[in-house]
Amino acid sequence: MFFMDLQKLREKAIQTVKAKLRQSVKEDVLIVQVVSGLEELDKVLNLLSKRLREWYELYNPEPSRMLTDHEMFANQILTKSKKDLLREFKIHDSMGAELSKKDVDAILNLANQLKTTFEYKHSQELYLESLMKSLCPNTTAVAGVQIGAKLISLAGSLDRLSSFPASTVQLLGAEKALFRHLKNKRNLPPKYGILHEHVLVNKVSMNNRGRMARTLADKISIAAKIDFFKGKYIGDLLLKQVEKKAGELR
Amino acid sequence: MFFMDLQKLREKAIQTVKAKLRQSVKEDVLIVQVVSGLEELDKVLNLLSKRLREWYELYNPEPSRMLTDHEMFANQILTKSKKDLLREFKIHDSMGAELSKKDVDAILNLANQLKTTFEYKHSQELYLESLMKSLCPNTTAVAGVQIGAKLISLAGSLDRLSSFPASTVQLLGAEKALFRHLKNKRNLPPKYGILHEHVLVNKVSMNNRGRMARTLADKISIAAKIDFFKGKYIGDLLLKQVEKKAGELR
Repeated sequence: MFFMDLQKLREKAIQTVKAKLRQSVKEDVLIVQVVSGLEELDKVLNLLSKRLREWYELYNPEPSRMLTDHEMFANQILTKSKKDLLREFKIHDSMGAELSKKDVDAILNLANQLKTTFEYKHSQELYLESLMKSLCPNTTAVAGVQIGAKLISLAGSLDRLSSFPASTVQLLGAEKALFRHLKNKRNLPPKYGILHEHVLVNKVSMNNRGRMARTLADKISIAAKIDFFKGKYIGDLLLKQVEKKAGELR
Repeated sequence: MFFMDLQKLREKAIQTVKAKLRQSVKEDVLIVQVVSGLEELDKVLNLLSKRLREWYELYNPEPSRMLTDHEMFANQILTKSKKDLLREFKIHDSMGAELSKKDVDAILNLANQLKTTFEYKHSQELYLESLMKSLCPNTTAVAGVQIGAKLISLAGSLDRLSSFPASTVQLLGAEKALFRHLKNKRNLPPKYGILHEHVLVNKVSMNNRGRMARTLADKISIAAKIDFFKGKYIGDLLLKQVEKKAGELR
């Protein structure tokens, strides 16, 4: 009888844990996945693009040097023939080898693969935007989709991000530089982590970037708290305050 | 007058170099490109597969553990719903979260991307096979497509591979171990490089693998010389000799 009770208790405990696991997957977990996925995708795109260029340059080297954007390069060589491209860039005497159709097709096959990978990346970015706007509209308004998502990914969840003070938000992504500073006092402390990618931080002069990052972190910290507790949307107001500060600092 | 001559001479020299560059692209250059491309593609497939699994396991963890092959995994989740998969593996109480259709679609989007990348890899392998069979049928017969192509890639060209003695062919791909041995005599010299991937080397017992690799390298070296000088096809004969040796060694 006692054994039976233990058995039942065990089953009940397992069921409870399973239910809790099922409920633990919230939108910010998905955001973390998409952000890491996008970072890996950039590596993939780089690998494929470099290989495509090296390979295609055997066949037609000159246009490759002139089309610097990888995605445009793939699209151009897929839609235009070697002749067309050479005429377009006014090159009369190409150094490229003549390859058989089968060999060119193998190269264009890679270009096609690269093109679909770029398209996949764009679709993931749109998906990330829709996730961010539904989960944390305020943070997204102030920080932008990419930086907002990276902040959540660095913090681990929106819950944790909302519990951080502004000074922590300011330095998220600069942990290495921060601990280097704390270990040997010779290095200056970092002024910003992932926030250095933000348009407004890049807009002001070098001297004022630390101040700008601080203001931005202040407002992001407020926005994250509002989002976590499902408050009203005041993203536009917060963004206006940050932009005003950016205008003052220059 | 003298200036004009120099100008003409210069143009002539440039034209000659351009023509030589055009002719320098031979089939083994393409083989080197495809081999490096395939190696990078394996990295890409690994990155995408790991991300897909981590992401999909939030939704449906149990089947992912049971489908170990990445390509099959992607195909299965694309064609079957969560319910079908759970029924197939007889799991009644899944730990996976319920996701909205939009979130599941984003995951399946990645699965689709992974699937097309696998398909692209297979098409590249077929292309490599056709290149190898037309450029060096003898080497391909003895070493196989993959190992033959890797040997050419390691040597740099069929020209160089054909000029190597058998002992060098045997150790291609084991340069690190070889120089470690030459530097401090404590380490034993390597017995084989890339040839350790060959079926016949794997078939014989551990003690005999060095001998087997040596025989194989002998025949590959002969085959590469025949291929480079466009000799007759005796691949089947060479392969038979290697297989006989493998039967003797066990």
